[in-house]
Amino acid sequence: MSSKLLSRVRCKYLRNKIIEPSSLLSNFQGHQTIGWSGFTGVDYPLQSLEPVINEVRSNGSFARPVFDLRVCSSGGTVTELALSELGMVRSRSPYQVSKSINKGLNNGKIDFHDHSLIDFAEQLTSGHLGAKDGKPQSLNIAIVEATEITEEGDLVPGASVGVTPELIQAAEKVIVEMNTNSPSLQGIHDLYVPTSPPYRRPLNVCTSKDRIGKTAIPLDPRKVVGIVEGSHGKFPTRTEPGNSSTKSISHHIIDFFKHETHRGRLPNNLHPIQSGIGAIANSVVEGLGNSSFRNLQVWTEVLQDAFLDLLKSGTVQYASSMSLRFSPQELENFYREWDFYKERVTLRPQAITNSPEIIRRLGCISLNTPVEVDLYGHVNSTCVMGSRMLNGIGGSGDFMRNAKLSIMHTPSVRPSKTDPTGISTIVPKVTHVDHTEHDIDIVVTEQGLADLRGLSPRERAIKVIKNCAHPVYRPILMDYFTLAESACLKRKMGHEPVLLDKAFNMHTSFLEKGSMKVSSW
Amino acid sequence: MSSKLLSRVRCKYLRNKIIEPSSLLSNFQGHQTIGWSGFTGVDYPLQSLEPVINEVRSNGSFARPVFDLRVCSSGGTVTELALSELGMVRSRSPYQVSKSINKGLNNGKIDFHDHSLIDFAEQLTSGHLGAKDGKPQSLNIAIVEATEITEEGDLVPGASVGVTPELIQAAEKVIVEMNTNSPSLQGIHDLYVPTSPPYRRPLNVCTSKDRIGKTAIPLDPRKVVGIVEGSHGKFPTRTEPGNSSTKSISHHIIDFFKHETHRGRLPNNLHPIQSGIGAIANSVVEGLGNSSFRNLQVWTEVLQDAFLDLLKSGTVQYASSMSLRFSPQELENFYREWDFYKERVTLRPQAITNSPEIIRRLGCISLNTPVEVDLYGHVNSTCVMGSRMLNGIGGSGDFMRNAKLSIMHTPSVRPSKTDPTGISTIVPKVTHVDHTEHDIDIVVTEQGLADLRGLSPRERAIKVIKNCAHPVYRPILMDYFTLAESACLKRKMGHEPVLLDKAFNMHTSFLEKGSMKVSSW
Repeated sequence: MSSKLLSRVRCKYLRNKIIEPSSLLSNFQGHQTIGWSGFTGVDYPLQSLEPVINEVRSNGSFARPVFDLRVCSSGGTVTELALSELGMVRSRSPYQVSKSINKGLNNGKIDFHDHSLIDFAEQLTSGHLGAKDGKPQSLNIAIVEATEITEEGDLVPGASVGVTPELIQAAEKVIVEMNTNSPSLQGIHDLYVPTSPPYRRPLNVCTSKDRIGKTAIPLDPRKVVGIVEGSHGKFPTRTEPGNSSTKSISHHIIDFFKHETHRGRLPNNLHPIQSGIGAIANSVVEGLGNSSFRNLQVWTEVLQDAFLDLLKSGTVQYASSMSLRFSPQELENFYREWDFYKERVTLRPQAITNSPEIIRRLGCISLNTPVEVDLYGHVNSTCVMGSRMLNGIGGSGDFMRNAKLSIMHTPSVRPSKTDPTGISTIVPKVTHVDHTEHDIDIVVTEQGLADLRGLSPRERAIKVIKNCAHPVYRPILMDYFTLAESACLKRKMGHEPVLLDKAFNMHTSFLEKGSMKVSSW
Repeated sequence: MSSKLLSRVRCKYLRNKIIEPSSLLSNFQGHQTIGWSGFTGVDYPLQSLEPVINEVRSNGSFARPVFDLRVCSSGGTVTELALSELGMVRSRSPYQVSKSINKGLNNGKIDFHDHSLIDFAEQLTSGHLGAKDGKPQSLNIAIVEATEITEEGDLVPGASVGVTPELIQAAEKVIVEMNTNSPSLQGIHDLYVPTSPPYRRPLNVCTSKDRIGKTAIPLDPRKVVGIVEGSHGKFPTRTEPGNSSTKSISHHIIDFFKHETHRGRLPNNLHPIQSGIGAIANSVVEGLGNSSFRNLQVWTEVLQDAFLDLLKSGTVQYASSMSLRFSPQELENFYREWDFYKERVTLRPQAITNSPEIIRRLGCISLNTPVEVDLYGHVNSTCVMGSRMLNGIGGSGDFMRNAKLSIMHTPSVRPSKTDPTGISTIVPKVTHVDHTEHDIDIVVTEQGLADLRGLSPRERAIKVIKNCAHPVYRPILMDYFTLAESACLKRKMGHEPVLLDKAFNMHTSFLEKGSMKVSSW
């Protein structure tokens, strides 16, 4: 037993629970529902599952368990790969980024339930995870990361909170993986689990800095079947670099913010920012850093490298997040300047970060990247060509439906295998809707920004085509719209013109020829 | 000046503002944004607009004003008819039920903005109603119903609150129409306008009975350009009778509630009920009355006749609503037994009734009727054949996105002109999405109920077809699904199977032949 591990388990009673991962083997058998913590944080293989994976792999007579995975993260992708390759995953929910899981859910081997993050968190504590065939489903085992167990026996999570408190509350058995590669993060968390209706009270968070919970999670020792040391390596997290396209998008957005503050429709420090991950998000954050905006608040799910500079410079005054996702270098800087950042960063569970109540109260400005957007502002965030799932809706729905400004940013085109501009992200009709026209305010590409507020559908279509579509697709889309408008107005059903027999022609053209450039309608 | 009117304006200073409607004529000129109160309550023509309508109609040299209407109601349909026939409506938002307005927005004469009720309420107070071309749009005139003006000069609304407080707050000029046909409703309202971010506080409502506001709305006397007597006739409101189909639907829903309470997933008095209007909603409410459920809470937008019996019998303990929509007979009963009902009913503005914060906290059970539902649980609530707007999303989005149980109830078929079962409400893919698969829990038709919670899309499709589709359409839909599943799994994009070139074939068949019964795929 490492002295590092021992020093992190400060509760004497729980020290008795420290075991080797191999001792956990007997806990995994039959058909079980298991969940683990983590959310877009540092990725690592789960030590607790290594023994059962090894056993299935090497021992032909070992009865292979099958799991329903309740994992809201990109942590543990190595483990997910192993489990799915060994046929040990029956279903998965919600958001996933593991290629092997993704393959399984698109080829029919794995059932995938795509819940928004707030709904997933609420389902965990509502007494049933699902009601399949009317039967409630319990959570058999939760595997949760800790960076410390306090003297009182409470669990201090790591850099990714996600649904850790709900997992601990809902599970029959709890396995703790102590991340001894990270310092204890005691003090940075604000941990609160909303009570289920009808006993829920207001969540009294009115700024990104407000605290309503505790810094550790109560742990029922009777549930704890083991505490193991996690081999949480410092896996590199890719930070996608910006390019001229993402910089243009950032430029349009910052200009728009200036325009709105100038007219008194946004305060000078804007509203709390929610920003996704990826190259565009990075460019927008950089753009804010180079702007004259100061004292910004951040209310988001994932805090990336770029935010650290903004906290340092005072551009961002305070950041609330559900997880940290730093490069190894910045993670080290973060820990080194712990006293500075601890006063400026709070990590919360997703039931709080993604609470519609709080997002709406704060008036968040929410920025996300879609698969595609249509002429009227409907957005596809999950299913390519309407059927192939990417990662899941994640938290985008929670924010888009409730933010004061819901902004979708995307390059206007993406390359296909044969054509560098083969895919237009602006389409006549999205093939899958995750966010409706009722919930989207702004669409922006490197071509420009379309402010859809206060516009009727036909006005929106023209604005989206003119401001956002790639020049190659502008005439194609305008031809479609003109045809659709004329046909539908003639039928006296022209509120939101659509040609049901042609609306997906650009998509079917792509499937057949690798390009959305249809030559005629 | 009628003595009735005088007795209702108890504030002496404001009595100076009592005028004849004809004196309001000069207020209406040019291009103006006007709004009026009311929400699915008693319908009546607006006295304040009669003079300008008469002038435009009879006086060729009168400069015709043109209005952007911000009216969230079915009150004033007679006025809307006149305005739109005279070409005086340029745009309209949000929810509308006037046939003439509907015609205009589907033939391209009127721009329609379909906002959810919560977003409309928030837009009114956020300093701009829309940001068309970046220009904020103010509200020039608000016409609001009152049943009393207090000694302090505050306005007591009538049976429909809607956005009355926001209209009064946002408008440059306010016209009060005193409804002297109704008694004063002083005491039944709980009136509170949430502050705009970043200064918004929690809305401290935790049961349908909690009060956070006042019983009257502060009225800035400088804004009041006139107080007129409204000729609020008792217009009959149709109460659509139930039939065997709606009774079956009600039966399935009550059975489901019993099932859930039996398993401890719902408390014995359920959760607060939100119920729409129409024959199905009436049957469900009747079904609750005949059930053994007691002490129910209601948190809804429109209170109908059937609820009064339930309040009397104790089936419903307390009801919170945005408006009353009673038949003349029941309205009279309501006023006669005012002391009983006032203790059991609260009327609130839509910013509160439709607040995502409160709906989610209460854990509402929300029931609504869609245009169509698809195999995966996406719902079309607004646009027939994807393009012809009916009424608008109204409050359905606010509830479906946040309720603990989001239930869509619909007959499985509707008649076309030539075929009594020509339209299936269960379709391969909805032609317009107002609520996504992420937000819908239950679909129910007279055929049965499909509990979609915890199911993957392919599981959902089979359950919806088997439990909800009409027997005539079951094989048609199953054929489509089998084809789509096989094609998409083959392409390794089978998470949510769709055939983009055939998904709307049932709809195009209807447009061509008046029936959705396609003979082959």
